Amino acid sequence: MDSFPTSLLSGYRNFMSGRYADERERYRSLAESGQSPSTLVIACCDSRAAPEIIFDAGPGELFVIRNVANMVPPYEPDGNFHATSAALEFAVQSLKVSDIVVMGHGRCGGIRAALDPNAEPLSPGDFIGRWMGLLKPAAEQIQSNDIMTPVERQTALERISIRNSLNNLRSFPEIKALEGEGKLQLHGAWFDISTGELWIMDPATRDFIRPDV
Amino acid sequence: MDSFPTSLLSGYRNFMSGRYADERERYRSLAESGQSPSTLVIACCDSRAAPEIIFDAGPGELFVIRNVANMVPPYEPDGNFHATSAALEFAVQSLKVSDIVVMGHGRCGGIRAALDPNAEPLSPGDFIGRWMGLLKPAAEQIQSNDIMTPVERQTALERISIRNSLNNLRSFPEIKALEGEGKLQLHGAWFDISTGELWIMDPATRDFIRPDV
Amino acid sequence: MDSFPTSLLSGYRNFMSGRYADERERYRSLAESGQSPSTLVIACCDSRAAPEIIFDAGPGELFVIRNVANMVPPYEPDGNFHATSAALEFAVQSLKVSDIVVMGHGRCGGIRAALDPNAEPLSPGDFIGRWMGLLKPAAEQIQSNDIMTPVERQTALERISIRNSLNNLRSFPEIKALEGEGKLQLHGAWFDISTGELWIMDPATRDFIRPDV
Amino acid sequence: MDSFPTSLLSGYRNFMSGRYADERERYRSLAESGQSPSTLVIACCDSRAAPEIIFDAGPGELFVIRNVANMVPPYEPDGNFHATSAALEFAVQSLKVSDIVVMGHGRCGGIRAALDPNAEPLSPGDFIGRWMGLLKPAAEQIQSNDIMTPVERQTALERISIRNSLNNLRSFPEIKALEGEGKLQLHGAWFDISTGELWIMDPATRDFIRPDV
Repeated sequence: MDSFPTSLLSGYRNFMSGRYADERERYRSLAESGQSPSTLVIACCDSRAAPEIIFDAGPGELFVIRNVANMVPPYEPDGNFHATSAALEFAVQSLKVSDIVVMGHGRCGGIRAALDPNAEPLSPGDFIGRWMGLLKPAAEQIQSNDIMTPVERQTALERISIRNSLNNLRSFPEIKALEGEGKLQLHGAWFDISTGELWIMDPATRDFIRPDV
Repeated sequence: MDSFPTSLLSGYRNFMSGRYADERERYRSLAESGQSPSTLVIACCDSRAAPEIIFDAGPGELFVIRNVANMVPPYEPDGNFHATSAALEFAVQSLKVSDIVVMGHGRCGGIRAALDPNAEPLSPGDFIGRWMGLLKPAAEQIQSNDIMTPVERQTALERISIRNSLNNLRSFPEIKALEGEGKLQLHGAWFDISTGELWIMDPATRDFIRPDV
Repeated sequence: MDSFPTSLLSGYRNFMSGRYADERERYRSLAESGQSPSTLVIACCDSRAAPEIIFDAGPGELFVIRNVANMVPPYEPDGNFHATSAALEFAVQSLKVSDIVVMGHGRCGGIRAALDPNAEPLSPGDFIGRWMGLLKPAAEQIQSNDIMTPVERQTALERISIRNSLNNLRSFPEIKALEGEGKLQLHGAWFDISTGELWIMDPATRDFIRPDV
Repeated sequence: MDSFPTSLLSGYRNFMSGRYADERERYRSLAESGQSPSTLVIACCDSRAAPEIIFDAGPGELFVIRNVANMVPPYEPDGNFHATSAALEFAVQSLKVSDIVVMGHGRCGGIRAALDPNAEPLSPGDFIGRWMGLLKPAAEQIQSNDIMTPVERQTALERISIRNSLNNLRSFPEIKALEGEGKLQLHGAWFDISTGELWIMDPATRDFIRPDV
């Protein structure tokens, strides 16, 4: 018990005396009635880009998947364990969310690794290498582009990755069908850690644009 | 653009005028220097249990994996895509976190599905069924216990799942080695949505205990 | 006389100069008119869980049975001596209590003995072994669950024992009938010695829940 | 939950804000280290005679058996369920108490029933009739004494019952042996509900005497 990180315990005390105290009834009601979030956010694990902070979301509002580089693998009903596909299935089929937001962000370590031609496996299992392999064709194409700066390449792949995830979402038959019926909407967003700006993908052009704030 | 969920846009405006305004320098500095969180939290996607809220964490503090039922699969260096193992590898090998917290919570929908003997696949891919299969032996043992109430069985499996994830973390050779060297500590925690209480796993007995607040 | 425990004599003097002095009229009146408690509490002998202390009860309020692990045996009108059934009969038929509370508690030594697969008889009579045999089927089912911790198994059986006692109460024809007529209500409660918390059994789900305090 | 007696809930709140708040550390310490009471009290279920109140006892001080008329049956190692013998065995063999106090009291309903020549069974099981049968020879002898008043007969049998319980305690081989070795002492006491007086049995004469207060 003594080993539990003290910063987390201290933060938890703030939560209990602050936010929880303010929203006690909401938490209780959410516990009783169950969650019914209308939005699924697929975000990165990055410590600087928590969806609940960026969207100032209260309890019960966002169902959140977080993996490295906010990626969605393509539909692969092969019987293996699929953390992301399982969460996706749960959000869409069981919770029946109406919106899915894929949110990327600047200075993403996973994207940086994908773009590094000299990247070594981080461990013999090379899990990051395999995982970022989902972006391999795009990464190779961007890597070979030597007239963009490294920062531009990075931002470009971050946004490509978001569109890639949106494409992969549509490889799931149920998601494609629900979107076709107008019951589900897919969105892209990109968060600039430095400026705090949120760029939203225009569904028509697939460009990222800053909304008026 | 008009389709982007208005509640998220509205929340984002609160963030910009509130938290971001207050912490502008911190965000900028984190963007420049990169993230160096000391803690990885493996949490559930549930909309009522966001780690940053529960630990009142600021930007840069928590690297967060979120999947259904906060699970860690066993070490499987098989070349497939492993969202969780990839994020884990990144946190441990690249970011060199000093602590990993597996945080479960009450009323978890994934655990409920694992305990439902009549659960049907949510979709033909049955991703949730496969994913929760990680807990199958434990779930079957708990299911057969007809003298605990459904709620007691649910809580029991939620806590067993946390211990299971901790066991699986130790199946990763690098994690086991770092823990052995005293460079990495593994923790379990369970959040009660209704009361806001955080129960922390005693590393010696593996019981969950409420810390003094 | 000199042998009477001095701590008890000293405590008795406190009672006389304190509580008795304050409630002299109540004691006298209760002596004259006889007792008419509305509640029977079936509690454990444990020195840390006295019902009058936990419910801050005054004289005349609680009729109290205390045996190891707050158990009620099933209805057995066999002509033998039955301490618990006799007290039960007196409370229900003669005092006509309106409520029966079965109160268990954490860290119960009787429950611990019931869960110990290597428990030896405490004496040749093996009275505890026989008495805890009332819980034998449940204890065996919980014992075989090796994925809950010893503390979790103990808490589970403590609560199962309360439900078991409530079931056995309903095996007494008079109690079953009075409950059916709405003249008698049965309740379960579990006291946490460490935190002082009282968990109350929800009659619908049979789960134990902390009331708002 | 709504059905739980409100007077008990209200009393529990007093306990939490009062006694528990004052003795929090003691409760915690007792939970950690386990109970080690030095005294077993065998008392009546009567709502007016709670040992913890009369001896002003704190948590952890008294291990308490309560049955109708504070009786101890004779040693009967017959394999049946024996609530009182089981608790006795636990207190003596496991907790190794140094003192056993049998505490009777005035106006005891069980004793009154034992003395009533016209007493009808309270229910077809006649559990009280059987239980008070433990005192049958003594009760018959007192009943036939028509020169004592009913109150005198009642008080007499109350005290006889205490001595009877002490005799039966000595029918347990382990208790007899421990007493012989000076490791266990047996005491009798009788509480006068009306005056609050505690009468203590002189071990030499077996008379009940009021100690100086």
